[in-house]
Amino acid sequence: MDKHSINMGLIGFGTIGTGVVKLINANKDLIEKKVGKNINLKKIVDLDIETPRGVEVDSKKLSTNVNDVLEDEEISIVIELIGGYQPALDFILKALKKGKHVVTANKALLAKHWEEIIATAQENKVRIAFEASVGGGIPLLESLNESLAANHIQSIYGIINGTANYILTKMTQNGLDFNLALKQAQEKGYAEQDPSFDVEGYDTAQKLIILTLLGFGEYIEQNKFHVEGISHITPEDIIFTLKELGYVIKLLGIARKIEDQLEVRVHPTLIPQEHLLASVNGVFNGIYLEGDAVGPVMMYGQGAGSMPTASAVLGDCINIISNPQKEMIYGPPKPALSSLKNMDQILSKYYIRLKALDSPGVLHSISGILSEHDISIESVSQRKKSNGLGVPIFMVTHKALEKDLIQALTKIDELEEILEKSVLIRILET
Amino acid sequence: MDKHSINMGLIGFGTIGTGVVKLINANKDLIEKKVGKNINLKKIVDLDIETPRGVEVDSKKLSTNVNDVLEDEEISIVIELIGGYQPALDFILKALKKGKHVVTANKALLAKHWEEIIATAQENKVRIAFEASVGGGIPLLESLNESLAANHIQSIYGIINGTANYILTKMTQNGLDFNLALKQAQEKGYAEQDPSFDVEGYDTAQKLIILTLLGFGEYIEQNKFHVEGISHITPEDIIFTLKELGYVIKLLGIARKIEDQLEVRVHPTLIPQEHLLASVNGVFNGIYLEGDAVGPVMMYGQGAGSMPTASAVLGDCINIISNPQKEMIYGPPKPALSSLKNMDQILSKYYIRLKALDSPGVLHSISGILSEHDISIESVSQRKKSNGLGVPIFMVTHKALEKDLIQALTKIDELEEILEKSVLIRILET
Repeated sequence: MDKHSINMGLIGFGTIGTGVVKLINANKDLIEKKVGKNINLKKIVDLDIETPRGVEVDSKKLSTNVNDVLEDEEISIVIELIGGYQPALDFILKALKKGKHVVTANKALLAKHWEEIIATAQENKVRIAFEASVGGGIPLLESLNESLAANHIQSIYGIINGTANYILTKMTQNGLDFNLALKQAQEKGYAEQDPSFDVEGYDTAQKLIILTLLGFGEYIEQNKFHVEGISHITPEDIIFTLKELGYVIKLLGIARKIEDQLEVRVHPTLIPQEHLLASVNGVFNGIYLEGDAVGPVMMYGQGAGSMPTASAVLGDCINIISNPQKEMIYGPPKPALSSLKNMDQILSKYYIRLKALDSPGVLHSISGILSEHDISIESVSQRKKSNGLGVPIFMVTHKALEKDLIQALTKIDELEEILEKSVLIRILET
Repeated sequence: MDKHSINMGLIGFGTIGTGVVKLINANKDLIEKKVGKNINLKKIVDLDIETPRGVEVDSKKLSTNVNDVLEDEEISIVIELIGGYQPALDFILKALKKGKHVVTANKALLAKHWEEIIATAQENKVRIAFEASVGGGIPLLESLNESLAANHIQSIYGIINGTANYILTKMTQNGLDFNLALKQAQEKGYAEQDPSFDVEGYDTAQKLIILTLLGFGEYIEQNKFHVEGISHITPEDIIFTLKELGYVIKLLGIARKIEDQLEVRVHPTLIPQEHLLASVNGVFNGIYLEGDAVGPVMMYGQGAGSMPTASAVLGDCINIISNPQKEMIYGPPKPALSSLKNMDQILSKYYIRLKALDSPGVLHSISGILSEHDISIESVSQRKKSNGLGVPIFMVTHKALEKDLIQALTKIDELEEILEKSVLIRILET
């Protein structure tokens, strides 16, 4: 092999893998000009190499045997795009141990097996790159690692799940309820048949783990922080908070440092309408972060999809080709949980929705309980009686301790006049 | 010297230079952890080393002699922050020839002397980095160079001058006229006493040259493209286009490729209110770009200021320390003007403001001239007579050739009933 050629092997010829092949076919000249070397996608491995992918590929490159990539000494970069935990983990570890650089979009694997993967890469003096694992094609991780590296990152607020954002956008713009918006997302191919991974916040949580690692150098396991989805959000929450309060609801992954304590959490959040994150709509992603020197920065783009993700995968390949010896210094090898703030210790403003009997003393009882728990009310709105039983009550609190609020809501929910479990949505501070 | 130490020299101890010193003082540990080496700002050169900068610095590091940086063999990275053409050019060239990497925020110099600076860096196998030259701390250039490098960039739309954006934001949000908004910008220190460099678009043009180089690999000299500022924009333009048409006016630097022809231009542009760029307000910068794989991406942040710019300068230093051998492949060494589209060949929708006598045939005459030049009108609005002479007429055209529009407006301006020179503002296509 010519030393001016780089051989790459692709494991996983699915949607993103096909995008990678398409993009190499289309932009090979451009990429070769930028890196000053020839690039060659030497082997493509998948269990299914028969189904046509609608992309031009030399059939001799196709194989069902992963060792055609992992054992080929000419291949120096392995692109893993099969997703999931196994056999992806074995493939990645084997590639690293064979002295190959690895590019992956596998957020689930990184979020769970971070320590082992990074340690293996470091021991074998090769690189692992994963720009595509968060925010699709948005140049986010590389920016955190390099351009913004002189900053202490103070906070990261990310709309990093396109499915949830599409559903919330439809609910907001078209007044749909959750189930109807979900159905539309499924029809458009933006949501899985079992949507819980996206709408319950787990996908956001996995990506947030990676952002927390790059932004704060801390590895927080997923079971250690609060993860809450959007399925309990109703059109009336959306309408009331938008029309009366000027807030837009988004599912946010939040990681921020406050007085040396790290807050990591995923939940729907009310964002002031004039905040840039409130304008991130549809399947788009937006990541707003603050550094001690740079101040606020936002990045916006497509967080998923074949070609945007392929853009990030090949961006990583270019980065590795132009800097194969780069050392990775990614946080501590062990989980560092000492600094993680417990969820009940966070301070926030809250929106609360209650459903109560339309009886004279009910507001008095509620405000009494809130007051007992040191929670002061910024605004309250009681709607006219609807045709059903009970009236909705919407409240916004001043900043309060989550623990106090949860205790107060537990007591409020026990009141005879309260007809449904209360709903709370946290409000973004700005 | 320890091989695990990197010595840097700073030329220019002004606002940004002071920010760099502050940021090193504050975040030295963090940066050293990330690059795995000790960093040492060995020398700081300025003509004035007496005036206190409000930052802690060892007085032995200060010098008025630039050769204390340029001739010191232990210094491997030179940070040039004096700005302007000379002596900055001499200092940079000398540093490069001495085998030192250079980090600069000097957009004016890069835009004018690009070829010489890049060629000198390449000949001497050292790097020149200039993230701070466009968009302050926004991780823009590095993203174009690496994470997005697998894309053919199709378009770049940048709000890259904070002064002009602050003035337009004030005019829009507070109904001020240009002069009053400028005065407020000057009072806040956002505009110079002679503001023409910012408000007439020249600063945007210099930055756009750099973006065009990184995005399209083409070096277009400043006298080769259209540069138009914002001083002719009136509150009535802003109010009418916002209330009646839903557009926000921004000063944009535009570079885009259409059928292998490059359009490069700077002018105020009407942007649909729902477009993310329309929400980039105050002194903030926003750069919206489209790549053939990644689709649209936007980056947002502070485009100026001591600390955001220092963040970019030190990000460049970190990048160089972790990859000193990286080859730069930045476009052709010579201006490549063959592909540049002439301004009169662009296609756009236009907003037109006229002032005419309130006489019966005037609209008929105007629409006749437009029609003769193949320009069709999307909407027209004639306002009630004001107390002065004449009435304002606002028009929006369908897409038209700039050449046709200019010829038509020239004829319209010659009509007896037209009282003032017409104003046109181009409308962003989406």
